[in-house]
Amino acid sequence: MRATVMHSAGDVRIEDFRDPSIVEPTDAIMRVVRACVCGSDLWPYNSMEPSEAGQSMGHEAIGVVEDVGVEVGSVKRGDLVIMPFAISDGTCEFCHDGLQTACVHVGFFGNNGMNGAQAEVLRIPYADGTLYPVAVGEDDALLPSLLTLSDVMGTGHHAAVAAKVAPGNRVAVVGDGAVGLCGVIAAKRLGAEQIIILGRHPDRIALAHEFGATDVVSERGAEAVERVKELTGGHGVHSVLECVGLDQAVQTAIEIARPGGAVGRVGVPQHQAIPGAEPSFFGNTTVGGGPAPVRAYIEELLPDVLEGRIEPGRVFDRTVDLDGVPDGYRAMNDRESIKVMVKP
Amino acid sequence: MRATVMHSAGDVRIEDFRDPSIVEPTDAIMRVVRACVCGSDLWPYNSMEPSEAGQSMGHEAIGVVEDVGVEVGSVKRGDLVIMPFAISDGTCEFCHDGLQTACVHVGFFGNNGMNGAQAEVLRIPYADGTLYPVAVGEDDALLPSLLTLSDVMGTGHHAAVAAKVAPGNRVAVVGDGAVGLCGVIAAKRLGAEQIIILGRHPDRIALAHEFGATDVVSERGAEAVERVKELTGGHGVHSVLECVGLDQAVQTAIEIARPGGAVGRVGVPQHQAIPGAEPSFFGNTTVGGGPAPVRAYIEELLPDVLEGRIEPGRVFDRTVDLDGVPDGYRAMNDRESIKVMVKP
Repeated sequence: MRATVMHSAGDVRIEDFRDPSIVEPTDAIMRVVRACVCGSDLWPYNSMEPSEAGQSMGHEAIGVVEDVGVEVGSVKRGDLVIMPFAISDGTCEFCHDGLQTACVHVGFFGNNGMNGAQAEVLRIPYADGTLYPVAVGEDDALLPSLLTLSDVMGTGHHAAVAAKVAPGNRVAVVGDGAVGLCGVIAAKRLGAEQIIILGRHPDRIALAHEFGATDVVSERGAEAVERVKELTGGHGVHSVLECVGLDQAVQTAIEIARPGGAVGRVGVPQHQAIPGAEPSFFGNTTVGGGPAPVRAYIEELLPDVLEGRIEPGRVFDRTVDLDGVPDGYRAMNDRESIKVMVKP
Repeated sequence: MRATVMHSAGDVRIEDFRDPSIVEPTDAIMRVVRACVCGSDLWPYNSMEPSEAGQSMGHEAIGVVEDVGVEVGSVKRGDLVIMPFAISDGTCEFCHDGLQTACVHVGFFGNNGMNGAQAEVLRIPYADGTLYPVAVGEDDALLPSLLTLSDVMGTGHHAAVAAKVAPGNRVAVVGDGAVGLCGVIAAKRLGAEQIIILGRHPDRIALAHEFGATDVVSERGAEAVERVKELTGGHGVHSVLECVGLDQAVQTAIEIARPGGAVGRVGVPQHQAIPGAEPSFFGNTTVGGGPAPVRAYIEELLPDVLEGRIEPGRVFDRTVDLDGVPDGYRAMNDRESIKVMVKP
C-alpha cells in the first residue's frame, strides 16, 4: 500500500509499504476513503529536520473497516467510520469524562511512530474507542463535512466551548484557516450574535461571511486590538477562538477579550509561554483549550451535518489523489488552497 | 487624621493628614474600625522606589459610615460596613455581571492616588456600589472574619471558583499565605474531597489542616509536581488555586493540574508571561482568575461567617494599632505573622 512520508521541510513523498495487519486484538484495519492535509501539517512542512526514515503523515480520515481484531465489538467489516485524529481506548476515566485526547492510551496518528492517514490503508488501535461508524455510503455528498468531524470542525467547536460561547455573545475568531472557519460555524451554532474574524485572505473571509461572520478585522497586533474594541462598544468580545498558535495571535486574543471573557486556544502553540500574564490577570480572562476531544463531539455535531444545518466540508477547495498530496501541501502552504482533501 | 504611607521599600510611616470630606455626591466617609496588611502590600515593601510623596497603603477594612453624599441611598451614618478592596459603581454592565473589579469606574484603595485603609478615616467613592452593610456591632467577635470578606476570603473563594472546584474534587492550593489558607476554606466549602496545600511554614500548615487541608507538600518545583502526582493516583488534581503570583508557582500550578483541570490565579503576577504554554495546551488546562470581585461574593459567604460555619478570621495572628503598622509589615515580611490586623 502507498502512504505519505515527510522527510524534511518541503520534502513530502508517496512511498510503498507492506499492508498493515491486526497486531492487537483491539485493532482494526481501515481503508481510507477520504483524508486531508491539516494546517498543523504545515508546521513540519516549514521546519522539519531531515530524516532518512521520515514521518508518516495525516491524522484526519473517513474510511471503511476492512478487518477487526477479536476484541473489537462496536465496528465491523464494511462499516464507514470517522477516524478522529487521536486514538482513545473509550474506557479510561478521561474518555468517560469526554476528554479522549487525554486518554491513558492516547496516541496521535502520524506522530511518534504511529501511521498516518494520508495513505491507502492504516491500522487503528483501540478501534472501539476511536472509530465512530456513520450510516452513509462511500460516495455520499456529505463526506467532506463528515471528514471535518475527524478534526477541524470538532476543533473549531472545542475552541468555542473553551471560549465559553453562549447565546447573544460577541465572539472573535483569530485565524482564517480551516479551523478558524469551522470556529465561525461553531460560534454561530452556539448562538453568538456578533462574530468577528481576524484574517486577511479574501477567499477565506468570503467563506467566513457565508458561515456567519459579521465583521472582519484584517489588521494585526495593536491595530487589530483597537479595531475589535471599536466594533464592540469599547470593551472587546466575550469569547475569543485562537486558531493560530503563534505568540502574537495569543497576545491579540487575550487583549481583545472583554473583562471576564474567555480565550479558547486550539492553535498548536509554537511558543513556550502564554503572553499577557498581566492583562489576562487584571481582565479576569480565562485561557483554555488544547487538543480537541473530537471523538466526544461527533455525537453532538453529527446530526447538524447529516441534516445539512452546518456545512463545514466547504472548507475543502481542492481534491487530490495520493500522488497529488505533495502539491497539496505546497498549495496550502502558499495559501492557494484553504484545505486539501485526499481521495486515495 | 492619621494614615499609613510607604515611601520606599521597607520604609512605612504613619503620617498626619487633613480629615477627608465628601467630594462627590456618591461618596461616603468611613471611620476605620479594623484594617489589615495584605500579602500584596509586601511586593512594594520589598521593591518600591523611593518617593517623597509616598503611597497611601491599605485596601481591606471594616468601618462605620460617618457621612454620606446626597446621592447615597444604600448606606447611612452609623452603619457598620465591609469595604471591598476595589470601588465599584454597582450599576455598570460589569457590576451587573458580578465582576465589580472590572467596573467602568473601578479603582483600588491605596493605588493610583486613592487613599488607603490603614488609616483612621477614608473617603469611599461610589459608596452605594462599594460598601456592604452588616448588622453587627463594632466589637463583635466576628469582626476578624467579616474583615476577610473585604479581600482574602473573597479572593480565596475566587481562586476556587476560577479553578472550578466541585464536590468530590482533588484540589491543590499553591501558597500558604492568608489567601492560600482562605483558599483551603473555600475549597472545602465547595465540596473538595482532597485538599493538598503546597507550603512550608509550620504555623500556616497547622492552620491549613484545621481549615480542611488533607495533605501537605513542602517540596518545590519538579519535586513538588512529583509529590502531588503521587498523592493523586498519578494524574494530578482537578483544581489548583494559585495564591502566590511568582513564575515558578504558576508553572507548578499548571504542571500539577490533571488533564482537563483548571488553575485559578489570584496571586498578583510578578511576571510577564504565563509559563507552560505547551503543557497547559496539551493537558487542556484552563487558566483563569484575577482580581476577585469580592463585593459579589459577600452575599454568598456572609451567612457562613455569621453562622460560624467558616472562620477565615483565624488567619489574623497579630493585632496592632496604627503606630504598630510598620512593625506589622516587618513581621509579615519575616513570616513571623500570617496576617496582621490593624485597630486604628
